[in-house]
Amino acid sequence: MAKESEGMNYAPKGKPNPVVKPGEFTFAAIALDHGHIYGMCNGLIEAGAVLKSVFDPDPKKVERFCKTFPSVIPARSEEEILADPEVKLVAGAAITSERCALGLRVMSAGKDYFTDKAPLTTLVQLEAAKAKVKETGKKYLCYYSERIHVESAVFAGQLIEEGAIGRVIQVLGTGPHRLGAAGRPDWFFKKEKYGGILCDIGSHQIEQFLFYAGVRDAKVAYSQIANYNHPQYPELDDFGDATLVGDNGATHYFRVDWFTPDGLQNWGDGRSLILGTEGFIEQRKYMQLGQKGSGGGHLYLANGKEETYYHVEGKVGYPYFGQLVLDCLNRTENAMTQEHCFKAAELCVKAQIQAVKLQ
Amino acid sequence: MAKESEGMNYAPKGKPNPVVKPGEFTFAAIALDHGHIYGMCNGLIEAGAVLKSVFDPDPKKVERFCKTFPSVIPARSEEEILADPEVKLVAGAAITSERCALGLRVMSAGKDYFTDKAPLTTLVQLEAAKAKVKETGKKYLCYYSERIHVESAVFAGQLIEEGAIGRVIQVLGTGPHRLGAAGRPDWFFKKEKYGGILCDIGSHQIEQFLFYAGVRDAKVAYSQIANYNHPQYPELDDFGDATLVGDNGATHYFRVDWFTPDGLQNWGDGRSLILGTEGFIEQRKYMQLGQKGSGGGHLYLANGKEETYYHVEGKVGYPYFGQLVLDCLNRTENAMTQEHCFKAAELCVKAQIQAVKLQ
Repeated sequence: MAKESEGMNYAPKGKPNPVVKPGEFTFAAIALDHGHIYGMCNGLIEAGAVLKSVFDPDPKKVERFCKTFPSVIPARSEEEILADPEVKLVAGAAITSERCALGLRVMSAGKDYFTDKAPLTTLVQLEAAKAKVKETGKKYLCYYSERIHVESAVFAGQLIEEGAIGRVIQVLGTGPHRLGAAGRPDWFFKKEKYGGILCDIGSHQIEQFLFYAGVRDAKVAYSQIANYNHPQYPELDDFGDATLVGDNGATHYFRVDWFTPDGLQNWGDGRSLILGTEGFIEQRKYMQLGQKGSGGGHLYLANGKEETYYHVEGKVGYPYFGQLVLDCLNRTENAMTQEHCFKAAELCVKAQIQAVKLQ
Repeated sequence: MAKESEGMNYAPKGKPNPVVKPGEFTFAAIALDHGHIYGMCNGLIEAGAVLKSVFDPDPKKVERFCKTFPSVIPARSEEEILADPEVKLVAGAAITSERCALGLRVMSAGKDYFTDKAPLTTLVQLEAAKAKVKETGKKYLCYYSERIHVESAVFAGQLIEEGAIGRVIQVLGTGPHRLGAAGRPDWFFKKEKYGGILCDIGSHQIEQFLFYAGVRDAKVAYSQIANYNHPQYPELDDFGDATLVGDNGATHYFRVDWFTPDGLQNWGDGRSLILGTEGFIEQRKYMQLGQKGSGGGHLYLANGKEETYYHVEGKVGYPYFGQLVLDCLNRTENAMTQEHCFKAAELCVKAQIQAVKLQ
């Protein structure tokens, strides 16, 4: 049980690859409820952004954050940060159900917003977020870390772009996670707060489907959730899966769960199998099963000619963050379009709403 | 394209492990339309059964069969075999849609029947088969080879039986196959004959779900099929998947397809991921991706204590065949119950009937 839980300390280190000069792009952090905030800030800093200030109502969370990022200034209030004209973007990892409300305040203050996933938990929030984007012209961006902050996932996108497996016809993702219940806050077990498993960790999966299969819209054909083995947390979905069908005919299956056993070397053996008309890709994102200390970044490509293994750890980097910084400065959409970000959010909420409850 | 296609030459060799003395159990082969007949006969012979005679209307198929099994006697007709009182069981690999009719004739002749999978293609056939079993007291058994003739699959069943992963909550199977269209007979591309992809190669998957999860009945929650990339074979499903929910709450997802690329070392990188409350198992049944010549029999077990890799090739064997022979002699059901065999058949037909057609 001493092993780190998903997200608690998730902050992959890439190679510093600044896209701006020091001081050209400044951001702040508000709401430290999920450990993903560390990865989000790391990624932006490596892209050359300056982390100026931080606020969270919990001083312990702020203290820990300041130890990791010693040059950051603790603000006295959220308002102080929102009123700071130097801050161009606010990164936040609030309780999931509160992420949208924070984003609305951030955008109303004239700043772009970069939230942990899932970016929101209801369709009402989605409409409010869309309206605010339209009203303010600001961005509501999301840290779908299982693609943008995983090197094999970035590389898979590059291979598909090059046509390495032909037309993508199915994306099959498994996202098992270790529960580590003792280290989780109360809100993690309240469905209204975390949004349900398909909305929460399912959002990673659906975003990958849209991206890899080039899908702009999709239908949730079937989804289901269960609490198989955690009666002490009655609102926890410890299992969920779904099938989606994209507007171009490509399809998606994903499974997410909180059943990573304690004997596993990592918090989860996340995989992605991408099937194309001319070949397939398998990502073993965080580990090689049965090989302790194997680390992440394992990708296999099979096509008409051969099978190839790529170990991409430390080789591909995370271009998303630099693109995001430049998108904010230049009002472009190279990191991710607003439409894509919202479509993934919409579909994960719909998958959760439609889900058949098994147990 | 020179690589062997699925089933064309599939006849794994196990260790001879006779359960009867020479001559105690005699069988014959009728209908050689699918190469699985070789695996079926191998398995029975290794269990001590005597292959006495063979019939197929195509002399070329019989000739090839006799080269593999030199002591077998070519019969002049099906009737000759059915009238032979020494023959206790008939093994057959007819065209899928004709498997039931053959079985009815075999059982009417007072013999047990062992057919290639899928054992039938319609619910009408299923009812006829059930009625004939009831009428004659004979057995209608099936060669669900992807479990019973795969050592990792047999071993997985043993581990689950021992409680190695707790209660099974999901079985996730992928069954990609190489098409090798040039080597396929015409009937392979006619849906009325092969039954559709979910009925055909999907039957392996559903049978595994019922077995591993201890499910006696299940519902097909969602299923879909597509012909993504083979317009020259309009009746071929080149892709199919389905989600099932068992009567005990366990669930099943499987994908089957005909997209194994020519560069792959084998006809398909078949996997099975079995998720339990206390751990999980991954089978890499026929190969290790990225390691040419890796052979089959790879199983990984992760539980509360550790991750363990088992290479079981040549170590586990195929107990199904000996159990089947003894079941026929003793009228027991240790290899597989009739109910289980028919339930898998029913569900794969239902998955096919219900399937949404994507493209």
